[in-house]
Amino acid sequence: MARVSQEHLDARRRQILDGAARCFARNGFHATSMQDVFAEVGLSAGAVYRYFNGKEALVGAIAQEAFAGIRSAFEEASRATPPPTPDVLLGGVLRLFLEERIPGADRQAFARLIIQVWTETLRDEGLAATLAEGYHGMRALWAELVEAYRRNGLMRADVDADHVARTLIATAQGYIAQQALFGDVSADMLVDGLNGLMSMDVQSRS
Amino acid sequence: MARVSQEHLDARRRQILDGAARCFARNGFHATSMQDVFAEVGLSAGAVYRYFNGKEALVGAIAQEAFAGIRSAFEEASRATPPPTPDVLLGGVLRLFLEERIPGADRQAFARLIIQVWTETLRDEGLAATLAEGYHGMRALWAELVEAYRRNGLMRADVDADHVARTLIATAQGYIAQQALFGDVSADMLVDGLNGLMSMDVQSRS
Repeated sequence: MARVSQEHLDARRRQILDGAARCFARNGFHATSMQDVFAEVGLSAGAVYRYFNGKEALVGAIAQEAFAGIRSAFEEASRATPPPTPDVLLGGVLRLFLEERIPGADRQAFARLIIQVWTETLRDEGLAATLAEGYHGMRALWAELVEAYRRNGLMRADVDADHVARTLIATAQGYIAQQALFGDVSADMLVDGLNGLMSMDVQSRS
Repeated sequence: MARVSQEHLDARRRQILDGAARCFARNGFHATSMQDVFAEVGLSAGAVYRYFNGKEALVGAIAQEAFAGIRSAFEEASRATPPPTPDVLLGGVLRLFLEERIPGADRQAFARLIIQVWTETLRDEGLAATLAEGYHGMRALWAELVEAYRRNGLMRADVDADHVARTLIATAQGYIAQQALFGDVSADMLVDGLNGLMSMDVQSRS
């Protein structure tokens, strides 16, 4: 009985978060009211407020969930030996978490939601903390992977692993910014671009 | 006489744009009023409105000027033969246009202004057009440079030049996002990270 009840609670929570994400992506975070969310998910104010006390809580939960999802895909994909190169891994994560889950027509709206979340951290400390924690986790995961590239002789050893990690995260953030601004990006484009960069033989020139 | 007058007009325009940029960076685009701008630049409403008809015009002019500045630094830096590698060029442009012009304490605020401009394009079509044009220009410049890398045997030839261009722009956008969110990025970090990526020998693995 307790188990069924927990499943019910989880499904209800899921339903609210998915509806809220659709509202935010469609109309922007600021133009969306809690009333819009109630209408979208087809639940009463009381039913929604039992789970989330406002828009900030909703957007914080959406951000936390996105980081958790990206993290688990990343962990799974990076387990291979030798580890997948950055282009393969980054392309895989972007495909799985944006392109396969979100129809093409909605992708720009979703990216716009993400850059609105970035802007929203400027006035919402809780959301800023959620994002800082999420990015910190991603940096640590990428840095571990960079160490693995080195152990496997795939990358020069005199470059700070955290700097490579942050540069790779930067390409993903830039992908999101371009998707939000112009709506015409694909994971394949980034895979291609990283391949071009990786083919540059800088060491032989120095 | 006409010449002195034009110089005076230009200096006044400059004074207004610099003051507005300081206001927007300090308090955010939405929380800044035109009254704040008048107070910051020490000019009357009439004097400011002679140049710009509102906040949107100010932020549009700031964005246009930033793109023009980045473009000229980029064109100058990319003229060498062989052309500078992406790490050298991107590092140089970021140092020149962010780190040398803007004191360390103000850099996060400036990056926050940029991500606010990104978000603002969602409801301001004029600003969206300015950004689209600016990025289009940057893509063309980077793509030309990628062609030069190929002619000089520095990059494999089977990768789309525009995809490499967009990936490099993505790293710069991600640098700005990280500077806005966490405030602890440096151009050196990105240079280092790109160096690590460029040292990965992917072709030998395929």
